[in-house]
Amino acid sequence: MIPPQTLQDGRTPAESEDAAVQAASGEPTAAEPTAGEPTTGEPDVTQAVYALTDRSRAASRLLASATRAVKDRALRAVAAALTERQDAVLAANALDVEVGRVNGTSAYLLDRLNLDPTRVAGLARALEELAALPDPVGSTVRGQTLPNGIRLRQVRVPLGVVAAIYEARPNVTIDIAGLALKSGNAVLLRGGSAAAHTNAALVEIIGAALEESGLPADAVLSVDQYGRAGAAALMGARGRVDVLIPRGGRDLIQTVVRESSVPVIETGEGNVHIFLDESADAEMATDILLNAKIQRPSVCNTVETLLIHSGAAAAPAVLDRLAGAGVRLHVDERAKALLPEGTASEPATDDDWAREYMALDLAVGVVDSVDEALDHIRRWSTGHSEAIITNDLANSERFIAGVDSAAVLVNASTRFVDGGELGLGAEVGISTQKMHARGPMGLAELTTTKWIIQGEGQVRQ
Amino acid sequence: MIPPQTLQDGRTPAESEDAAVQAASGEPTAAEPTAGEPTTGEPDVTQAVYALTDRSRAASRLLASATRAVKDRALRAVAAALTERQDAVLAANALDVEVGRVNGTSAYLLDRLNLDPTRVAGLARALEELAALPDPVGSTVRGQTLPNGIRLRQVRVPLGVVAAIYEARPNVTIDIAGLALKSGNAVLLRGGSAAAHTNAALVEIIGAALEESGLPADAVLSVDQYGRAGAAALMGARGRVDVLIPRGGRDLIQTVVRESSVPVIETGEGNVHIFLDESADAEMATDILLNAKIQRPSVCNTVETLLIHSGAAAAPAVLDRLAGAGVRLHVDERAKALLPEGTASEPATDDDWAREYMALDLAVGVVDSVDEALDHIRRWSTGHSEAIITNDLANSERFIAGVDSAAVLVNASTRFVDGGELGLGAEVGISTQKMHARGPMGLAELTTTKWIIQGEGQVRQ
Repeated sequence: MIPPQTLQDGRTPAESEDAAVQAASGEPTAAEPTAGEPTTGEPDVTQAVYALTDRSRAASRLLASATRAVKDRALRAVAAALTERQDAVLAANALDVEVGRVNGTSAYLLDRLNLDPTRVAGLARALEELAALPDPVGSTVRGQTLPNGIRLRQVRVPLGVVAAIYEARPNVTIDIAGLALKSGNAVLLRGGSAAAHTNAALVEIIGAALEESGLPADAVLSVDQYGRAGAAALMGARGRVDVLIPRGGRDLIQTVVRESSVPVIETGEGNVHIFLDESADAEMATDILLNAKIQRPSVCNTVETLLIHSGAAAAPAVLDRLAGAGVRLHVDERAKALLPEGTASEPATDDDWAREYMALDLAVGVVDSVDEALDHIRRWSTGHSEAIITNDLANSERFIAGVDSAAVLVNASTRFVDGGELGLGAEVGISTQKMHARGPMGLAELTTTKWIIQGEGQVRQ
Repeated sequence: MIPPQTLQDGRTPAESEDAAVQAASGEPTAAEPTAGEPTTGEPDVTQAVYALTDRSRAASRLLASATRAVKDRALRAVAAALTERQDAVLAANALDVEVGRVNGTSAYLLDRLNLDPTRVAGLARALEELAALPDPVGSTVRGQTLPNGIRLRQVRVPLGVVAAIYEARPNVTIDIAGLALKSGNAVLLRGGSAAAHTNAALVEIIGAALEESGLPADAVLSVDQYGRAGAAALMGARGRVDVLIPRGGRDLIQTVVRESSVPVIETGEGNVHIFLDESADAEMATDILLNAKIQRPSVCNTVETLLIHSGAAAAPAVLDRLAGAGVRLHVDERAKALLPEGTASEPATDDDWAREYMALDLAVGVVDSVDEALDHIRRWSTGHSEAIITNDLANSERFIAGVDSAAVLVNASTRFVDGGELGLGAEVGISTQKMHARGPMGLAELTTTKWIIQGEGQVRQ
């Protein structure tokens, strides 16, 4: 069994995430004094960011027609440069970490910010793996020849200019830059101010490696020097930026969704439910619940609420095992009655039904039917993933049809809702929205399509 | 040859479109006095509209699991009811037309508003045709069995609650309601106030026919009674409304794009270019240009700018034929030099390069290369469709790769960029955005997907 995850500063990852958002969205640090930094898009900053989007657009045209061979060579060149120039990256990172330490940044956030030779090697390896994946650009989605002889093809093409707003995590800089390059997009980055030195070093190294590989250095640019005003300018750059990807905690994502006029790919929050049906096998249920809650509590496909059918014989054994594994149970009155004598628990409130703990906590409630479980899920779910554990075929079908989330699972751990596990290759994130992409997003979701229509002079009748 | 389109009030369709937007977005008319109508979402109206979205959501759940047979029966029942209750529809419509006439509404707008037995029959026929199309819901986009035995399927499911904001055109009410029903979505309509009586009659008839067919009447609801405040409440109903479709002129669409927090499917504006390359055949070029400009000037896939290679021998003949067909030419200096003696023309300004005439007007410019044509298109295009007429293979490929629009055509009329012509069946509109859908949108674009993941107790390693 995997031991419960603990953080060095004793806070849960969810709590730390909020702090990270504040840090990323421009709370004052020694590295970024408020005095010189405007809080909304000022004209000068907006013009400067627009000038950057022009450079990104020009670069995106070259990238769009780059062959897979050239893009993969560039990805490998970036990987090699990261290894060769590791000392410069680590020196810049040490500066960011030191500034953070002086400012009292939590150990959890410092750990996310910190790079060491092992982590840099991991980033380089991820780029190598990306180079080995198929290129989504140019693949034909559908096509046919019309009766009048016109040939139609709908092919995948890059989106163009992708922007990302994220927290002080240098790995996201490499991650997003790699995904964008592979899918033929130019990218504009707004990383957390707390990682400014590291990100600047990374962007410089990427740019030099791109140029050596015959691609424009402008394919990866940063607006970090403009602080919050730069982020605001990016969010307002509709028509200049094709899509904006926020990466981070709930507050960061919701702020971007609310303020951006650029289309946003909303990823993330997973208030994931598992419904233990009356007919569920106790052993299967225990295995799935333990895996879904404990294997990696801080990620979005971890279960957060267990709904139990009032007639489920498996329930007490499952709850006993979860409690024994260190899971803190937040129970309603009927669920409390199912707990073995002496098992610690707290009463569940609406906050518990709503919350993505991202920690070893689990809300537990009892319902009398699949429909009642579906009602609860409709009220509280974030639309990420929901699972049923059952041996009843009709209930399984009812659950599949009734759940309106990106993924619905039957008798499998919710931890499988992941791009790599589902065979999509590299993952941009997990979309909880319905437009463009829903569920795990791979490289294809960073493309759009173009109709190519070829004839010999045909006109419409 | 098709005679030039003229409007009864002597204005071009583009000009009339603006008037239509104003009318649709709540300019005072006798039918809708400003006194009682708030201009932004007031709390009471917001709550009332939210109550409607709750009813839509409940209806959408029933629709999502309705079989194709039930949905098609409902579509045919609506068609039959339109025919049977035609008198009520025409009476309500006569009232709207009379109010419009008293208010001095233009003949063009009155014509768009007006229904007669032939038009009602056309609406009924469109619903019958929709019933004959395949159902996008439930189709499997992709699927596989993983090495661990887990079965994956990504299937199409309805978006849920679709809202539409459009102008005083009763045909859009039937059109959007039919498309939404067929794709399993509930729909909330905000039609133009100038068509309020007609739309109320249509929604009532649709609701009764749905109930007779075993589907909820709430599947098609209107917020028309709340005027502009109702439209504002719809635009702010993120999470309650899954997608908002504006249908109408540029101002209407841009207002919705700017103000909506609900994801918008942006359709429409087509500043369409044709590039006449050096090697273009004169006869083919003439046929394509006449078809693309004259067959139906008021639609978005009509050509608005002709770019001519400075060495194109075909140019004078093509321009002569266009002028002879009644096309008003707006030319730059070099294009003017290509006109036969005595051909009328006006000098082209930036306004001409930017404008979607939707009338028998054409901007004409001369360039020295494919790249120069691409530069012009990048600057002025709305991303709808662009065509090249050429016999040069390299230039054709360069043009296809260089154009960043929903459709790129080689040696074919831009009028083919249409859902019906491309074999997509019924058309929701033509998307000029890159997210979710690009180009002609059919029924599938009114769906999202859901991953269905089935196992026998598998957990993640």
